[in-house]
Amino acid sequence: MAHAEFWLPVRVYVEDTDAAGVVFYANYLRYLERARTEWFRTLGFARPALFADRLAFVVRALEIRYLRPARLDDLLQVGVAVVDLGRARLRLDQPVLRDGERLCEAAVELACLRRDTLRPVAIPAEVRRALARRPSGGRGIAGRGEVS
Amino acid sequence: MAHAEFWLPVRVYVEDTDAAGVVFYANYLRYLERARTEWFRTLGFARPALFADRLAFVVRALEIRYLRPARLDDLLQVGVAVVDLGRARLRLDQPVLRDGERLCEAAVELACLRRDTLRPVAIPAEVRRALARRPSGGRGIAGRGEVS
Amino acid sequence: MAHAEFWLPVRVYVEDTDAAGVVFYANYLRYLERARTEWFRTLGFARPALFADRLAFVVRALEIRYLRPARLDDLLQVGVAVVDLGRARLRLDQPVLRDGERLCEAAVELACLRRDTLRPVAIPAEVRRALARRPSGGRGIAGRGEVS
Amino acid sequence: MAHAEFWLPVRVYVEDTDAAGVVFYANYLRYLERARTEWFRTLGFARPALFADRLAFVVRALEIRYLRPARLDDLLQVGVAVVDLGRARLRLDQPVLRDGERLCEAAVELACLRRDTLRPVAIPAEVRRALARRPSGGRGIAGRGEVS
Repeated sequence: MAHAEFWLPVRVYVEDTDAAGVVFYANYLRYLERARTEWFRTLGFARPALFADRLAFVVRALEIRYLRPARLDDLLQVGVAVVDLGRARLRLDQPVLRDGERLCEAAVELACLRRDTLRPVAIPAEVRRALARRPSGGRGIAGRGEVS
Repeated sequence: MAHAEFWLPVRVYVEDTDAAGVVFYANYLRYLERARTEWFRTLGFARPALFADRLAFVVRALEIRYLRPARLDDLLQVGVAVVDLGRARLRLDQPVLRDGERLCEAAVELACLRRDTLRPVAIPAEVRRALARRPSGGRGIAGRGEVS
Repeated sequence: MAHAEFWLPVRVYVEDTDAAGVVFYANYLRYLERARTEWFRTLGFARPALFADRLAFVVRALEIRYLRPARLDDLLQVGVAVVDLGRARLRLDQPVLRDGERLCEAAVELACLRRDTLRPVAIPAEVRRALARRPSGGRGIAGRGEVS
Repeated sequence: MAHAEFWLPVRVYVEDTDAAGVVFYANYLRYLERARTEWFRTLGFARPALFADRLAFVVRALEIRYLRPARLDDLLQVGVAVVDLGRARLRLDQPVLRDGERLCEAAVELACLRRDTLRPVAIPAEVRRALARRPSGGRGIAGRGEVS
């Protein structure tokens, strides 16, 4: 039920759950970061490589809606869809699904920074090109689509 | 520089930081939860007490803006301000400050649920009364005020 | 360089690292737990299934030696080897490797408990049989062997 | 019931618990680290100060026994007692108590390293002196004593 250009499967382990028997709300942000990292990797940019270029993508803002709880042992799909690509800013939709059912939806805004000054810098041309090569654009948090 | 009716001091430990030398973005949500818990406690409602009533406040949605990074050993102040109190829903502003400087601002929406059915239920009268007794209302994420 | 009957690949993400640029020492215990869970699954015992039987394996004691630090983006192998199988107790060796190099070695003692009373209970016969069917025994923390 | 020269009170929050309703076993190591940090601070050595000296104390080995589970909202006392002070190595006992009852006992071995080379280096004289000024020595994991 969700559109995204990349999906990372994530298993829920004991470490992720809390005394309510569900995934602790902060831990979804760990999943989102893992999915972004693996998506970057598929684009050819491992974090260490970006770091070698003295760049980092950092989260500036995040909106997340918790729709249904994930539980111990669930196998989740964590998506990444580009919503907007600015000069030094990238906006992503990141849904979290279980068996096609949407548990969470997150809109994440990242800034491209120089690691030394922590100031915004233009996203490098090769990263832009890689993002442009992506199969298709996301449609925002309300978008419809399918798990690929 | 921030208005809130409750502030929890939080020290940044190694566990909170990441390889970029700053607090990992998900960990602010841990701080927010701690502050909400201690604020509830000052209102007379420890989590176990609420649980005894078969109720839980769960986060439905969250918006967070990361303005400046917190670092190892920083002493932060994590605030709680009521923005809106609905029948079964509570909206809070939760700023994170260091030396009066705003590092993060979060808007958090909580639902009051029955623990067995996970369905929304009216916030109990005594909780409402306690919230109404609070010294003063928050003014939303853009609000001005002082660290008390 | 390590003997184990099960290996789980684990990627190091930002969430796992700390301001020293390495994996935070507590987070290896998260990796160990993931490996035990997946190893149990290969034996035919998902945690929920055990729970249905009202049983849980809980860690009673743990010894861990940190030999070399793991870093962001490392791909680790986390092992499980049975060292001793008692009536209600299970001892495992759990090495953590990177490219065949041993980063950590852990000796873990688990107790089989009834979930309601939290008292020790004999490991069920089917679990014992599954453990006995395992290809070969571990040889303790100092053991030699190969990554399978 | 435990002897230590420093105690840090630690509240158990939702983030610390797991689906079994107890503190997740790895999270005690977070508590131990917090207590060591605050103990160092009382000795006059904040981590940033040590870092300025290009030194770090890192955990080399750890033994932990889990005796009784901690639960949501518990107020714990996490102790630090020096057991042995070598040239470049420090051994501590770190009990975790609740209302005087021992929940956990940990024996922790730390090495003093140069941050650049990650090689052992003699513990600086001023740190040794501060450790020597401590009111009384710990007696190891089996030691008896009282919560101060």
